[in-house]
Amino acid sequence: MATQEKTPVENAQLKDIISHAKEYGFIFPSSEIYDGLQAVYDYGQMGVELKNNIKNLWWKSMTQLNQNVVGLDAAIFMHPLVWKASGHVDSFNDPMIDNKDSKKRYRADVLIEEKAAQYENEGDKARGDALTAEMGKLLEAEDLDGVRELIIREDIKCPISGTANWTEVRQFNLMFSTQIGSVAEDSQTIYLRPETAQGIFVNFLNVQKTGRMKVPFGIAQIGKAFRNEIVARQFIFRMREFEQMEMQFFVRPGTEMEWYEQWRDTRRKWHEAIGIPADKLRFHNHDKLAHYANAALDIEFQFPFGFKEVEGIHSRTDFDLTQHQELSRKKLQYFDNDLNEEGKPYGNYVPYVVETSVGADRLFLMVLCSAYQEEEITEGDSTKSRTFLKLHPALAPVKAAILPLTKKDGLPEKATEIFEDLKYDFNMIYEERDSIGKRYTRQDLIGTPFCIAVDHQTLEDNTVTVRDRDTREQVRMPISELKSYIDKAVNFKSIFAKLT
Amino acid sequence: MATQEKTPVENAQLKDIISHAKEYGFIFPSSEIYDGLQAVYDYGQMGVELKNNIKNLWWKSMTQLNQNVVGLDAAIFMHPLVWKASGHVDSFNDPMIDNKDSKKRYRADVLIEEKAAQYENEGDKARGDALTAEMGKLLEAEDLDGVRELIIREDIKCPISGTANWTEVRQFNLMFSTQIGSVAEDSQTIYLRPETAQGIFVNFLNVQKTGRMKVPFGIAQIGKAFRNEIVARQFIFRMREFEQMEMQFFVRPGTEMEWYEQWRDTRRKWHEAIGIPADKLRFHNHDKLAHYANAALDIEFQFPFGFKEVEGIHSRTDFDLTQHQELSRKKLQYFDNDLNEEGKPYGNYVPYVVETSVGADRLFLMVLCSAYQEEEITEGDSTKSRTFLKLHPALAPVKAAILPLTKKDGLPEKATEIFEDLKYDFNMIYEERDSIGKRYTRQDLIGTPFCIAVDHQTLEDNTVTVRDRDTREQVRMPISELKSYIDKAVNFKSIFAKLT
Repeated sequence: MATQEKTPVENAQLKDIISHAKEYGFIFPSSEIYDGLQAVYDYGQMGVELKNNIKNLWWKSMTQLNQNVVGLDAAIFMHPLVWKASGHVDSFNDPMIDNKDSKKRYRADVLIEEKAAQYENEGDKARGDALTAEMGKLLEAEDLDGVRELIIREDIKCPISGTANWTEVRQFNLMFSTQIGSVAEDSQTIYLRPETAQGIFVNFLNVQKTGRMKVPFGIAQIGKAFRNEIVARQFIFRMREFEQMEMQFFVRPGTEMEWYEQWRDTRRKWHEAIGIPADKLRFHNHDKLAHYANAALDIEFQFPFGFKEVEGIHSRTDFDLTQHQELSRKKLQYFDNDLNEEGKPYGNYVPYVVETSVGADRLFLMVLCSAYQEEEITEGDSTKSRTFLKLHPALAPVKAAILPLTKKDGLPEKATEIFEDLKYDFNMIYEERDSIGKRYTRQDLIGTPFCIAVDHQTLEDNTVTVRDRDTREQVRMPISELKSYIDKAVNFKSIFAKLT
Repeated sequence: MATQEKTPVENAQLKDIISHAKEYGFIFPSSEIYDGLQAVYDYGQMGVELKNNIKNLWWKSMTQLNQNVVGLDAAIFMHPLVWKASGHVDSFNDPMIDNKDSKKRYRADVLIEEKAAQYENEGDKARGDALTAEMGKLLEAEDLDGVRELIIREDIKCPISGTANWTEVRQFNLMFSTQIGSVAEDSQTIYLRPETAQGIFVNFLNVQKTGRMKVPFGIAQIGKAFRNEIVARQFIFRMREFEQMEMQFFVRPGTEMEWYEQWRDTRRKWHEAIGIPADKLRFHNHDKLAHYANAALDIEFQFPFGFKEVEGIHSRTDFDLTQHQELSRKKLQYFDNDLNEEGKPYGNYVPYVVETSVGADRLFLMVLCSAYQEEEITEGDSTKSRTFLKLHPALAPVKAAILPLTKKDGLPEKATEIFEDLKYDFNMIYEERDSIGKRYTRQDLIGTPFCIAVDHQTLEDNTVTVRDRDTREQVRMPISELKSYIDKAVNFKSIFAKLT
């Protein structure tokens, strides 16, 4: 469920990253020429390559490396009963309250939490905790009037109007709805999926049977999800349209905790393998579990605005499959032939589920924040600063830039020849405008690991210089060695090797 | 714009493909346990791999192989004015009419076209043509009453009720709408994009400036689009949620026809390069052009239900950019420095656009229909039939199956060793259940190009047999040669080589 952020001002460093992302073609505000659309963003020419690389890497890590994990791509549109079964129709809500003077709307629970935090800051942690606990009880009992009374008793005021002139507290469902079907009797209200997981659950038996899968097995999926967040912010961290990469792993009841621990460790290893420093990552165990879970934790990354969830690992029990079984009246059970052969009873069961759920956009932001580097370079007497993106070469949007030193003497032709030869293997840029220094700088800013300069010596001996983005060091090598040199650095295999 | 299909019964061969797609994990009806959702489908474990391969191939063919084409991933949600500018709010309509007795809804234009086709079938082509022409004029004049009168004059009856008891003709907009924003004053009606192209147009200057692109250049995009079709059918050919792969190529005004012809030829070559027989493809030039186009054609494929559009090549002029310029009051012009240097005036202009627009789902269906093969095999006295998917190896979901001949004698261990060594390079299946013949059959049915059998000889000399899906021939080769043998067949490079 969404939580409203408490930091009123965006961190300065995040601002740098946002403007860098805009300036170098990573992220543009949606519909910018129409002054944008609330909390929606587009991925630019560099951003889409970085995002695709992240998605492909996750996909292959999940499906290709694991014999017992296969993929799925369920549609965004699903039957409305899916969201009844999952509980989203009835309880995917946030409690809202409006101030009658300012006409501003707030999340009621966040107003109270902010008050509790204030008590804590003033040194009265006990009072803060008591307030939070009281609110928790009221929300659990769905006592919205009680929540409103609490706000008034605590004398919480609207920061805009300064008054406590509040409306009722109401529940606001976060799902987007639309009408499908043009014919009156067929037309029905459907929802844009608020999570991709349910597409996996309703296809559980289809995949198990047609793929002859044996428990334990997993189904992985990448796709868009939509939530009409009351407060969406912090750049692409919380958007109303976002992309999830989820894997549901179906296991024998009773074995879920060992799989939970295994996937927790596998996924953390993955984040480190793509170059995220271990000390920027942490586990956060959930104290309060969702109704469907018997264990849950977040993998958090230290964003410029603090440690925040990037991925969730959840032991979801048999909640979802059982709910769908009841509402659809279709059996969603697995016949465990191995159990049968072991002579154990109950060969038929509803599997338990361990989920790994990561936000592709949050992962993108994590990678970008982690890669963004500023350093001072001293050359002789002068010092200048350099900004570059220290992306893992396997994730970098552009793998190499081919740069003729000058626009004449046949250097562009020679450089083009190299480009044409390597383009089947790597995404590359050819650039002949401006000084070589400026061109290096531009490649640093988009995180290109290698700059290949074609100079007069190249025409004589078929060698080029290759500049390393991170060290700025140049090595001279034969053109014939370029392919394997680049491939070694940018191939996913260098990451896969760290996962096993 | 959508057209209603006239064939009342699905072609028998399409039925075979639909059931094959379901049975082997390519396509499942959405939310099937809830009896499905109208014209929405999910891609299963095999389908998602095939679709991803198609998408990746298109993406790399467009962006990686062309120095002057870059990618983009704009959000599905866009500012509502985008669809005002594009004309979708005002004219993305189909005319509908209801029969008051049966309560069934029809597309008015299709009812009339069917009547015209009936005249033609009866030998009176002239009368049919005259009727179609008359309807065309009425629709152009937006004379919906006239369309209704035509239906009544022609005595067109509802096929269900058999009566001509018709309602008014009304326009039905095909865009899905929803509400974004939880706060009353911020809340607004937005649309699910009915095409991805506009995401490219509104980002034209962002990409051009941040990517330092020089005209001519292109922007490629893959993404979901949504149309509330009145009649959606023929499996995944016309869905309400579908995926487009579009490329907008920005050119100097006056040069659009040469680029139009070039992209037309490049795209046709692409379809042939992925293995579609040339005689199953044809160009269909549009007689009647959309208001924004000065040239347009479809690349059609011979589906089981006839030649139908897979891809559109459109010369869209400067219509879209000009519309956005007017409505947003932002200049969407390109400063053509080369023109300037040539001493020509008018260095600033709104570029013309040539578009290639292909449906990813239609492409998928084309590939599946084209790959689906049934053949008779005579072995001694007996003849049996074999079904297999003759997919291009680069597109096949699974590249190789590793099959130990028996479950004992260390063969599974040896086979697993091979699997573990190759899994970093290829998506593979390991399978030890059932007879080797049955396992070959299953791989044929999902289009796996290579079956690698591990037998007792393997333990002695480290060789395996590799069975070819299409010829069923087996060759024996050292394990050490497998990687390059498979790679040669499945690498995109074999397709790229045919494009240049």
